[in-house]
Amino acid sequence: MSKGESTKIAILDEATRVAARVGFEGLTIGQLADQAGMSKSGLFAHFKSKEQLQLETLDHARARFVDRVVRPALATDRGVKRVRALFAGWVAWASDSDGNGCPFVAAAFELDDQEGPLRDALVRNEIDWLEIIASVTRTAVTEGDFRDELDVDQFAYEVHGVMLAHHHATRLLRDGRAGDRTRAAFESLVTAAQTQD
Amino acid sequence: MSKGESTKIAILDEATRVAARVGFEGLTIGQLADQAGMSKSGLFAHFKSKEQLQLETLDHARARFVDRVVRPALATDRGVKRVRALFAGWVAWASDSDGNGCPFVAAAFELDDQEGPLRDALVRNEIDWLEIIASVTRTAVTEGDFRDELDVDQFAYEVHGVMLAHHHATRLLRDGRAGDRTRAAFESLVTAAQTQD
Repeated sequence: MSKGESTKIAILDEATRVAARVGFEGLTIGQLADQAGMSKSGLFAHFKSKEQLQLETLDHARARFVDRVVRPALATDRGVKRVRALFAGWVAWASDSDGNGCPFVAAAFELDDQEGPLRDALVRNEIDWLEIIASVTRTAVTEGDFRDELDVDQFAYEVHGVMLAHHHATRLLRDGRAGDRTRAAFESLVTAAQTQD
Repeated sequence: MSKGESTKIAILDEATRVAARVGFEGLTIGQLADQAGMSKSGLFAHFKSKEQLQLETLDHARARFVDRVVRPALATDRGVKRVRALFAGWVAWASDSDGNGCPFVAAAFELDDQEGPLRDALVRNEIDWLEIIASVTRTAVTEGDFRDELDVDQFAYEVHGVMLAHHHATRLLRDGRAGDRTRAAFESLVTAAQTQD
């Protein structure tokens, strides 16, 4: 990796943290240059515009997410074990990220009314994520862990709701019982998916 | 109501819409004065500071929410009927609000890392809201609609997750199936609460 590339990655790591904390709108080249100890013009050479910086930060966060959540889950056995691994990976991701929470959840509620390329890119990400949950759930159906008629998209929708509740309870309410509540909510969904109608 | 009071309420209605759309940070006295056709100094006379405007807007939104969601639900019969009324009231509230979504959901993910009086006030609101859901759920337990051992706080947590998923699916993804998915998710929770362990 060249020095230029590793500098850019360090900047994008920092930008991801800032976006998770104050949102993508709060991501400015000036502020990021200060934090990276670079000149504003030096940072401009990497990103050209605020919008470009935002888009590359989202893309960078997505790549990190695939590495840390999706890929490890796909390496586990097909079936309910993989569904659990994906969920546990997400919880670890949302708790980690240097204590700033999940940048995608932050962006989802920040950008829902802000038309433009950044919103479009985020929507593609979020649809992909729901489809990954559904597709991993489908392996649990084909392996016989979950019932045949399970609506895997509905399951993904409900699991995603538990993830959002977890983010809200840990980040905003700082509720010490959130971890237990989240696990219980997820286990109820798994139990319901295992039960024959 | 005096002219001053009705002007203030009209401003706070508009401020609630702005907060739902662009967040509480996006709420500025200058912009709001433009939209209300008032001078900036005229608006300052009502609110003194941006923080005061934000706090009064949150308080105003809370009063509207109580009028439109909580109070009508509490007027229905105790039991599962009241749980359904509360949920349906929330969905109508989140769909309405002049198409800007629920201001509390927007604020919850905007303010989670912004320490201060506004965050503190929002946390109190959100804890109250979860307790209202739990307390209405308790009427369904005492009326015999839900099983005796139901953890009503856990039920409130899971219902709240469905609400957040609904907001995400309607506002960000603009998913035409969101209403059906939300109803199905809520009905699964109700069914599980009715079932004896």
